[in-house]
Amino acid sequence: MAIPPFIIQFHQRTPSVKVTNGFVIFDLTQYKTLHTMNKKSVACLLLVGATLVLLSCQPKQEPVANEPAASVDPLPSWNDGANKQAIINFVTAATTEGGTEFIPVADRIATFDNDGTLWSEQPIYFQFFFAIDRVKALAADHPEWKTKQPFKAVLENNMEELMKQGEKGLVQIVMTTHAGSTTDEFEEIVEQWISTAKHPTKNKLYTELVFQPMLELIDYLKANSFKVFIVSGGGIEFMRPWTERVYGIPKDQVIGSSIKTHYDYNDGKPFIKRLAEIEFIDDKEGKPVGINQYIGRKPVFTCGNSDGDLQMLRWADANPLKSFKLYVHHTDSVREWAYDRNSHIGTFDKGLDEAVEKKWTIVDMATDWKVIYPVEKQ
Amino acid sequence: MAIPPFIIQFHQRTPSVKVTNGFVIFDLTQYKTLHTMNKKSVACLLLVGATLVLLSCQPKQEPVANEPAASVDPLPSWNDGANKQAIINFVTAATTEGGTEFIPVADRIATFDNDGTLWSEQPIYFQFFFAIDRVKALAADHPEWKTKQPFKAVLENNMEELMKQGEKGLVQIVMTTHAGSTTDEFEEIVEQWISTAKHPTKNKLYTELVFQPMLELIDYLKANSFKVFIVSGGGIEFMRPWTERVYGIPKDQVIGSSIKTHYDYNDGKPFIKRLAEIEFIDDKEGKPVGINQYIGRKPVFTCGNSDGDLQMLRWADANPLKSFKLYVHHTDSVREWAYDRNSHIGTFDKGLDEAVEKKWTIVDMATDWKVIYPVEKQ
Repeated sequence: MAIPPFIIQFHQRTPSVKVTNGFVIFDLTQYKTLHTMNKKSVACLLLVGATLVLLSCQPKQEPVANEPAASVDPLPSWNDGANKQAIINFVTAATTEGGTEFIPVADRIATFDNDGTLWSEQPIYFQFFFAIDRVKALAADHPEWKTKQPFKAVLENNMEELMKQGEKGLVQIVMTTHAGSTTDEFEEIVEQWISTAKHPTKNKLYTELVFQPMLELIDYLKANSFKVFIVSGGGIEFMRPWTERVYGIPKDQVIGSSIKTHYDYNDGKPFIKRLAEIEFIDDKEGKPVGINQYIGRKPVFTCGNSDGDLQMLRWADANPLKSFKLYVHHTDSVREWAYDRNSHIGTFDKGLDEAVEKKWTIVDMATDWKVIYPVEKQ
Repeated sequence: MAIPPFIIQFHQRTPSVKVTNGFVIFDLTQYKTLHTMNKKSVACLLLVGATLVLLSCQPKQEPVANEPAASVDPLPSWNDGANKQAIINFVTAATTEGGTEFIPVADRIATFDNDGTLWSEQPIYFQFFFAIDRVKALAADHPEWKTKQPFKAVLENNMEELMKQGEKGLVQIVMTTHAGSTTDEFEEIVEQWISTAKHPTKNKLYTELVFQPMLELIDYLKANSFKVFIVSGGGIEFMRPWTERVYGIPKDQVIGSSIKTHYDYNDGKPFIKRLAEIEFIDDKEGKPVGINQYIGRKPVFTCGNSDGDLQMLRWADANPLKSFKLYVHHTDSVREWAYDRNSHIGTFDKGLDEAVEKKWTIVDMATDWKVIYPVEKQ
């Protein structure tokens, strides 16, 4: 049965309809409920339903032999090739009821690393730019910082000196800039920063430096009833204010590193204070632990880009259900950055070896992706 | 427009259709995707859509004046009255687009306590029966327990002696029975127990002692695009194996107390070991902290039954969006149990006072609920 073209356009980002065994399946997973659809869309949906039912009630037309399902490309920014095909094959098999590789909806858990997997992470994790900007914003209230390391180095833009301060200095900067506020206040601070601050060399908002092909992959998985989570070494409360808007991933599906918090209740106003003490590092061994704690299920689909994600990929690999493990390999020094084994940010060494050995999918940014950032898209 | 009766029956538990401004809205929130519906249901849905569209295209019949929307009772086990009406009014206002109390879908977060709110908790939290049964099951490997407290008291069914062991004894029992296994093993142990163990006086499976009216409330909220979470003092990994089946709440929407875990990787097989150390107590002040950590949003709808839930209700009350706070008051000594201010389990004292003062909804089990347990339902 041919699909009227307006159905294909019904959903703006990914195809909202597929034909299986002669039944038309509307994909409504992007709508938490039809209540949220506007009336025109609902009317349109019903009209489509009506039309198709009427068509199917008509005397059979000459059969169309083996016409493929509505052939909208779910991953338009991916070049055709083995990697793109592997993704599509996996999702198709996972959603084919009665097939040997069918995955029940409840088990369709997908976990994505963030830094280097969903957005860039060079020359340093973007959250660190946030911390630097916070030090500068708070400096007026801390005149002593002018002479006190590691703050002095930050205020003087002396990165070399800052690096000499080592891990202790970095932790000090993160704690000073991430703790002390209430959770509500911190959310506002992050929102304000993320909507205005720009990347030092790309001169774009950080949220413009997300990877278009990965946005499409997230949408494609969601459209096939995968529940998509972020599992990042970045701060959970640094990500949540904008992940919903940028990735379409709700706050409660974001897992990250966290600092301790404390609930207090004064004068009938409850609040949660952010304390200067690390609670959980969601990196390396922390990733399976975080996945177990927040999700309670091993993923069937997981994406990372560095050795810090290896344990997460192994955790998905240990799923008794067939799982898909994907590594993004930063190979594009022109459009993004090229780095792997010897990079301090996003080291990709053991993970690369294990991915090759176990035949996991390794995405070559330079050849697999038509565009990197959304702005490059036509 | 009259709704053909078969639509009403289309969805077995809650109404799947409502009519707003002449548009028919199918409620598909219970289906993560239409892919999971069987073909007959899809065909039926399309047929309904077609029928209604055709009906709406027909020349207008004589108008039906002010006919109410499809009047299927979303809460059939609730007696009519102020409390039931308050719930329905809140949900209707929250989902009425353009209304002053409309709540965007992303903000429709509902949090439910478990013990005493979704299932019974007398004569002692059900998880403690699990711990006792585990001590007995493990006793063969621990001959020393015959003479060593608190295990001796458990093996001799001497509750009085067991209580004398105090908190230290209880923690020892919980740690002995809840730690030491891998997360996969523990899930199997819980699943095995919950499908066979019976309540000592009710002589029913514990999962049969869930509250039918609350199941309907969960379904009603889900049908209106609320994302429903459990936020319980009970163990997170004790609940997750069965909450999906019993409440329709997925594992990643269950928050509870937890013990520390450790990821390990031997011979290419990753696993997570459960350690004998408490990580987080999801009770009292812990509930807002847990909600912030796992969800990242204040709830707009929350239900509890004891002082341990008061901080959660206050947290919802602090939501800038209008929120609904509900306390279940155990007033039914015949069908369930009656207890409040002086009970050791589920103490409801400060919470009761504050709920009265702030005009939160206090459900009177004896008068508000037609039935308590699903088995009583016709």
